[in-house]
Amino acid sequence: MPAIKNTVVIFREDPGQGWVEEKHMEVVHKDFDPDTVEIKPENVLVKTLFLSLDPYMRMRMATGAKSYIHPFQIGEPLQGTAVAEVYRAAEGSKLQKGDLVVGMVDWAEWTIVSEKGLTKVEKKADVPLSYFLGILGMPGYTAYAGLEKIGEPKAGETVYVSGAAGAVGLVVGQIAKAKGCRVIGSAGSDDKVKLLLEEANFDAAFNYKTVKSYTDALKEHCPKGIDVYWDNVGGEMLDAVLPLMNAHGRIPVCGAISQYNASEPYGVKNLSMLIKSKLKLQGFIVGDYYADRELYQRFQQEIVQWIKEKKIVYKEHVDEGIASAPSAFVGMLKGRNTGKQIVKVV
Amino acid sequence: MPAIKNTVVIFREDPGQGWVEEKHMEVVHKDFDPDTVEIKPENVLVKTLFLSLDPYMRMRMATGAKSYIHPFQIGEPLQGTAVAEVYRAAEGSKLQKGDLVVGMVDWAEWTIVSEKGLTKVEKKADVPLSYFLGILGMPGYTAYAGLEKIGEPKAGETVYVSGAAGAVGLVVGQIAKAKGCRVIGSAGSDDKVKLLLEEANFDAAFNYKTVKSYTDALKEHCPKGIDVYWDNVGGEMLDAVLPLMNAHGRIPVCGAISQYNASEPYGVKNLSMLIKSKLKLQGFIVGDYYADRELYQRFQQEIVQWIKEKKIVYKEHVDEGIASAPSAFVGMLKGRNTGKQIVKVV
Repeated sequence: MPAIKNTVVIFREDPGQGWVEEKHMEVVHKDFDPDTVEIKPENVLVKTLFLSLDPYMRMRMATGAKSYIHPFQIGEPLQGTAVAEVYRAAEGSKLQKGDLVVGMVDWAEWTIVSEKGLTKVEKKADVPLSYFLGILGMPGYTAYAGLEKIGEPKAGETVYVSGAAGAVGLVVGQIAKAKGCRVIGSAGSDDKVKLLLEEANFDAAFNYKTVKSYTDALKEHCPKGIDVYWDNVGGEMLDAVLPLMNAHGRIPVCGAISQYNASEPYGVKNLSMLIKSKLKLQGFIVGDYYADRELYQRFQQEIVQWIKEKKIVYKEHVDEGIASAPSAFVGMLKGRNTGKQIVKVV
Repeated sequence: MPAIKNTVVIFREDPGQGWVEEKHMEVVHKDFDPDTVEIKPENVLVKTLFLSLDPYMRMRMATGAKSYIHPFQIGEPLQGTAVAEVYRAAEGSKLQKGDLVVGMVDWAEWTIVSEKGLTKVEKKADVPLSYFLGILGMPGYTAYAGLEKIGEPKAGETVYVSGAAGAVGLVVGQIAKAKGCRVIGSAGSDDKVKLLLEEANFDAAFNYKTVKSYTDALKEHCPKGIDVYWDNVGGEMLDAVLPLMNAHGRIPVCGAISQYNASEPYGVKNLSMLIKSKLKLQGFIVGDYYADRELYQRFQQEIVQWIKEKKIVYKEHVDEGIASAPSAFVGMLKGRNTGKQIVKVV
């Protein structure tokens, strides 16, 4: 292959407390020769096929903050999880040309990465490769593990999911349905609400941007109270939910998307309900559960089975070309996407 | 016995959002003949020996609120847990004159109660009867069960207790010490801080009313961060603690004494730390754990052993006479007491 350009997205500027804008990132085209570039021992050169964009990346843009993952570096490429194909491997590598892997790469067409961080995957019949970034990947396992380990929904219980049309929320709601719960979701557009009701089989759903009162909407749709609240948004919605939780309710705290761009964090006033209703509010990240191999195996088996039985419908929002990643990321944070945000690179 | 007076404390007025004052209660003296008063089947007449006053009672004064326990009724006696002596029992009762019991009675010298709610206790050598209201009763079991089931302190970890000089806090800190943790406490007076350091063997303690910044005080005393935060106060202190919690920290939420009398609840801003540090924040009430008989037996054995070994020092604040209960209750809510608040009735 002759020398070509590698299109890469560089992190230019910490967005501070505000919204991320495209100007905080820059698309550059670097001279690159995949056939001659040096690959150090234990590294491989991979070609990105599908790149995953996820809300947690916003936190990595806070360069000064204490976070669970180290921040992106100004002037360096942004990074994300991708399905990629090995193009060349250092001598002695366990991987070889043509292998399909999932792992952290640059927002780029080509990346040289340590093979340690890559997981080899096998293409499954009837399951698109990009699913390894979603329902069979991090968001899917986030939903599955958070429900199994914290939410513990039981048949007949009421499960409410905020951010329900997002990559994780959609899976959470459908798993809870498959387990026999009554499932209610909220999302930020009428199209998303329609998706929840008509395709994802939620029992009820509402557009949180157009209801007059979160409390009234929740009371209407959850007449028996809420047993499990899957919290993707934090802030004001959490405050509205707390008084409506049933005794011994569980709240897996998976995200706080309403707060990531807030200039002043919202103060949650109803925490006294934790005692009154004996509630558990527990934050987690999926990384804590990868070591649990039994849980992970059960996850892969059950999800593939549910997809085949059509108990789970899985949606993707696909943008094309790595150069579209900045606008796709900005759009996702503003709630433009319906389903898992993917950038199809090749 | 001739007809006498039964001194009873009546609930007169819901204090609303403000502080409880003595005027919200009234001490009355009712004609009473313990020898002739009618005792219906399955009831007994008991004479209160020691009455326990506890912060949770404040919540029962909110007559309109959704709470975990039904509110006190205006015009009726206030109620609380007491050590009492059976004076007369209905025919067929399992209890008889002279039996010692623990259970819910009126704030009164005499109460007729259902025998179902009473637990017979045996006087133990070297352990005062009033201990069944504290370290061997509800506050002690609250501390023990909350630590065992939610806090899970491990040797070498840092445990921070707010409201540390209260009935529960003092036991929490000392159990954590007995388990090999570094224990830090905060309280609202220099005398209480002295008690924590000099008698209860805390590693560090501070007066939250006089420190300039909760955050600075906590950073100074918890240089390795906080693994378990026993939350008795809620509000601003919780907000200060959240960013200082170590990954996978546990926060048993046992009380929110800073909020009971707040006209406007404090909004907690740092809940995003739940995700960043993968924290568990769990409210509970001790009543949930009484069914766990194995836990309860272990509690009684370990605590008596620790008292004998002087690993646990137990403090009481005793007022005399049932008529002192209103002022004692008001004082307790304002933090006047050091250790468990008891009213010695006889």
